[in-house]
Amino acid sequence: MLKYLQIEIELEKYIEDNALQQGDKLPALQSLMKQFDASKSTITKALDLLEKKGIIYQVRGSGIFVRKHKRKGYISLMSNQGITKDLEDFDLTSEVIELKVIKPTTEVAQNLILQKDDDVYYVKRIRYINGQTLCLEESYFNKSIITYLNKEIATGSIFHYIREGLGLNIGFLDSFLHVGKLKEEEAEYLGLKTGAPKLRIEGVFHLTNGQPFDFSKVNYNYEQAQFYVQSND
Amino acid sequence: MLKYLQIEIELEKYIEDNALQQGDKLPALQSLMKQFDASKSTITKALDLLEKKGIIYQVRGSGIFVRKHKRKGYISLMSNQGITKDLEDFDLTSEVIELKVIKPTTEVAQNLILQKDDDVYYVKRIRYINGQTLCLEESYFNKSIITYLNKEIATGSIFHYIREGLGLNIGFLDSFLHVGKLKEEEAEYLGLKTGAPKLRIEGVFHLTNGQPFDFSKVNYNYEQAQFYVQSND
Repeated sequence: MLKYLQIEIELEKYIEDNALQQGDKLPALQSLMKQFDASKSTITKALDLLEKKGIIYQVRGSGIFVRKHKRKGYISLMSNQGITKDLEDFDLTSEVIELKVIKPTTEVAQNLILQKDDDVYYVKRIRYINGQTLCLEESYFNKSIITYLNKEIATGSIFHYIREGLGLNIGFLDSFLHVGKLKEEEAEYLGLKTGAPKLRIEGVFHLTNGQPFDFSKVNYNYEQAQFYVQSND
Repeated sequence: MLKYLQIEIELEKYIEDNALQQGDKLPALQSLMKQFDASKSTITKALDLLEKKGIIYQVRGSGIFVRKHKRKGYISLMSNQGITKDLEDFDLTSEVIELKVIKPTTEVAQNLILQKDDDVYYVKRIRYINGQTLCLEESYFNKSIITYLNKEIATGSIFHYIREGLGLNIGFLDSFLHVGKLKEEEAEYLGLKTGAPKLRIEGVFHLTNGQPFDFSKVNYNYEQAQFYVQSND
């Protein structure tokens, strides 16, 4: 592992272990260089990554401070690694309703940059948090990238499988949010009333090489799901 | 202006002027160095900033590519500069319902890190997009930072005033999203029915020095507002 990545992980652990709060000051650059026996540029790289991840903020001429925003149980809209990572303290399960190989609709083909006769895996799941319905998810995976899927994999974390099983590098994510009312079928799956509020998030996940591999449409149970976003200047 | 910031702006303009699309390739690092007569580290800094802003992505050993995600009329949840900047193509107006100096509630004091006898500006506005209600906004500003506000300022862009009028540097933002049902008073202001879906976003805006200066609670009209988020790995 690259040294700055290792330092980044250790600093994150240090903040966690010492239960540092928003506004708490970290050691100065010079001390960190000594502590980790690393060059200024290596420490700076680690700090920039921590800042990008919303874990610290740096004030010129003043120091490095902890940024702690996170309300427990909120799902990050910034995460491109799937919701399993955000909610690891919770009991998260999935029920696979449908899993099959299909030809893409126009919408799916546009979002995944596919031809009409390419193949996609279609996966429809209900996801549960502590036994409550969290969301109804429909995902379309480009089969030439996600070459294999089955029900057992889809019952767990598909993204974990993509990273560890297929060895793919998940890059960036574009998400689009709409608020509306649940249709009858959606409401039934979520155990809510038809017409109840819904948050629908459409996401296009890309590999680090820019290829879109997953287009997903997720309807959240508004009683269970809440979200957070951190932005930097 | 620092050179890498200038190059960043020019590259953004180049992408705009040439109507480059998602996946289009930019000139290689060497060409950019020549074109802008700049060092490798200056160009790299400009590119890293563009990547952070979600405008490009870089693939090691392959090149620099345009990232174009934006659906017109979507509000960025990543922007810390207020919604006026996102919707500049639209006719955005505000009606001030209330503006007064008050003592903070416990919730406001916690979010702005204030004492009970500190002063805050309370501003309640309805914001309109092309004549339709967009959101009902209640904001609380730390008066020791935002020292002056009046109705005329609040009818326009308060954030523009904070940047240009007060000369403050707006730093990072933490947002928390909930979906629910509109209460009677909220529904009336938005011109919707009581119980209709609502998206409520609570935001804590910080200066670049880490001080929180604005705690806002915004209820959006679900028929008018849609949102996007870009995330990186």
